[in-house]
Amino acid sequence: MENTQNSARREILKIGALIGGTFALGGMLSPMNAATTQFKQPTRDNPLMLNYNENAYGYSQLARKAIERSLTKIPFYPHEAVDKLRTDIANFHQIKADKICLTNGSSAGIQSSIYAANKMAQELNLPIRIIIPNPTFEFIEEYARPLNIEVVKFNLDSEFNVDIDSMKRNEREFDGVSLVYLCNPNNPTSNIIGANDLYSWIRTAKTTTVFLIDEAYAEYVVSNLFKSGIDILKDSTKNVIVLRSFSKIFGLAGLRVGYIITTSELKRRIDEFLELESINVLGAIAASAAIKDFNFRQYCVNSNLKSKQIITKTLDSLDLKYAPSHANFIFHEITGQFDDFANNMKLQNILVGRQFTRYDNFCRVTLGTPDQMQYYTKVLKDFRKKRLI
Amino acid sequence: MENTQNSARREILKIGALIGGTFALGGMLSPMNAATTQFKQPTRDNPLMLNYNENAYGYSQLARKAIERSLTKIPFYPHEAVDKLRTDIANFHQIKADKICLTNGSSAGIQSSIYAANKMAQELNLPIRIIIPNPTFEFIEEYARPLNIEVVKFNLDSEFNVDIDSMKRNEREFDGVSLVYLCNPNNPTSNIIGANDLYSWIRTAKTTTVFLIDEAYAEYVVSNLFKSGIDILKDSTKNVIVLRSFSKIFGLAGLRVGYIITTSELKRRIDEFLELESINVLGAIAASAAIKDFNFRQYCVNSNLKSKQIITKTLDSLDLKYAPSHANFIFHEITGQFDDFANNMKLQNILVGRQFTRYDNFCRVTLGTPDQMQYYTKVLKDFRKKRLI
Repeated sequence: MENTQNSARREILKIGALIGGTFALGGMLSPMNAATTQFKQPTRDNPLMLNYNENAYGYSQLARKAIERSLTKIPFYPHEAVDKLRTDIANFHQIKADKICLTNGSSAGIQSSIYAANKMAQELNLPIRIIIPNPTFEFIEEYARPLNIEVVKFNLDSEFNVDIDSMKRNEREFDGVSLVYLCNPNNPTSNIIGANDLYSWIRTAKTTTVFLIDEAYAEYVVSNLFKSGIDILKDSTKNVIVLRSFSKIFGLAGLRVGYIITTSELKRRIDEFLELESINVLGAIAASAAIKDFNFRQYCVNSNLKSKQIITKTLDSLDLKYAPSHANFIFHEITGQFDDFANNMKLQNILVGRQFTRYDNFCRVTLGTPDQMQYYTKVLKDFRKKRLI
Repeated sequence: MENTQNSARREILKIGALIGGTFALGGMLSPMNAATTQFKQPTRDNPLMLNYNENAYGYSQLARKAIERSLTKIPFYPHEAVDKLRTDIANFHQIKADKICLTNGSSAGIQSSIYAANKMAQELNLPIRIIIPNPTFEFIEEYARPLNIEVVKFNLDSEFNVDIDSMKRNEREFDGVSLVYLCNPNNPTSNIIGANDLYSWIRTAKTTTVFLIDEAYAEYVVSNLFKSGIDILKDSTKNVIVLRSFSKIFGLAGLRVGYIITTSELKRRIDEFLELESINVLGAIAASAAIKDFNFRQYCVNSNLKSKQIITKTLDSLDLKYAPSHANFIFHEITGQFDDFANNMKLQNILVGRQFTRYDNFCRVTLGTPDQMQYYTKVLKDFRKKRLI
């Protein structure tokens, strides 16, 4: 993956796998995390929220302490904290800071990338098209709509794989600027695009093609089949834009911090459309602290794998299909209609979803803590008894 | 102005003016504010920052307490806090929430308004032009550039007034969509546009004209000659977009929260170009608390008036010209070149500026606390002795 820490992570996981099939915990949990992870019976007022892929383990104590120390910085524009975060991200990925755009959540990265590609097409006097898998994260379509950009969708195959061949063919045949959006791991399916497929496409793509690779969940991936766009950028000069987020494994969804890694040329184009002074000071300071907390992320990765084992075991026993999960959520069959299932879950004080096109009999569920997943799977089994699934 | 609280504020100020020329303090200062306002001799490492128009009194203790209570909300998407803030703003201004867009700082409001007006022009198949005073806040030009929109500038007159007549004539004669940007109070001059001039123009403007009124500093204004665009919106159906900010009198610059008040139609158009989920949870929660802290704002307004008296008295004695200030900064003559002046100030550990076009022998200076302004004016007088101004 993208850095030495992640290589180290994979080593720990391998070692963990050796000792009796249980995972070695890379990090210790501090009191706040423990409180967050202690299982409480869901109620109507405090439901189990498995619907936004938020981090079930909260966020780094280092980030919390950094925020508490920084409340006096609030009246001031956050230039210093923002510059520091850019440097910290550059160090983390061992790249130059002039390849990084900070974004107000990775959502701003999607929006500004579309606008930049659109302007590129205007300058080249070429049409523009966005090519996406179906289903995928919906913001790409939301942001394309006001610009009236055509979005061409390619259905996932029966095993939930992104149909790279068809997308590639479309890109080849289109005489214009193609913005190829790949969410990797994909949302809602949580599966990954094979490194070889991805890399060979990018290497041979037209010069008017831009790859927008949304890696909001990349830090959860432990598979060797995954290759980050950041690594691809390191050894190619292709038009690749990688989006990363502090909302998922870093647990800072409320603070709206994400970033883009791309080429200097695309950074220049994207910066034109990014809001000036968009990063808030506490978000920047928290992100700088969180990126250094390897233990917290290691704990999240390992615990997430446990949760995945719990749910896949149940899904197997219930003979319900699911996409191979590589993030903190899983996309699984429910046999009936999504709305009915979500309503039934709500009656059990569990929020799931949301619904995605073409998969009305599937549900996206966030992987909570192992205890939470025990609870969820117990409800699933009850549903089977009641013939609700 | 825009609400009953502000009417109340003006009453208090009038009463204050009656009791011996000193201002009654509307609010009590809590320890944090006192610490912030206690004057410390500036040093090279801790200079007196009079260069960003940040709030010299920090921010509301109510906001700080609300933030401290909310650190557990950080891992979650901030839908609830954002909805609450929209309601709180609606109540504050006594308008409907469906006229409000929350923005990630008012900067995002400038950007999205330009994009919305641009799309309106495209749909009408008309050219677009942005009409601005010169100088004014530069972000409007920054955001117009990537869209290649023509910006037509009208110099302030010799008394720093916005040249409404010429701008109006330009708007009348242009066969297209005019986006008229008026920063009120203006930046860098801090003076206001007369209510009658503004209102009569808006009332008679073409239907293809959009007024973007940036009121980032409106809460500082105590003059009866000022009329907020929010009031104009209340009794007209014209294309008016008002921008407000939590960065200035609310003292939350680091948290990036602003808002737009406009018509339902323009809100729909602007929402298309605003980033999804752009407001951070601590910013939303702090803003909701701050908007209810009338005492803190009252204190800032009154203390700011004292600071203004201190500096204008000195400027008068030094025979240096200045624009009539209605915000927490003042634009004054320096006789020499801006760069020299700023460098000399820096040697005294005071940061001022920045420089604005057409006024090389003027400086924009933030109004700090009265003690800070005593310090600044002492340095100004020293400069005169040394013939630096």
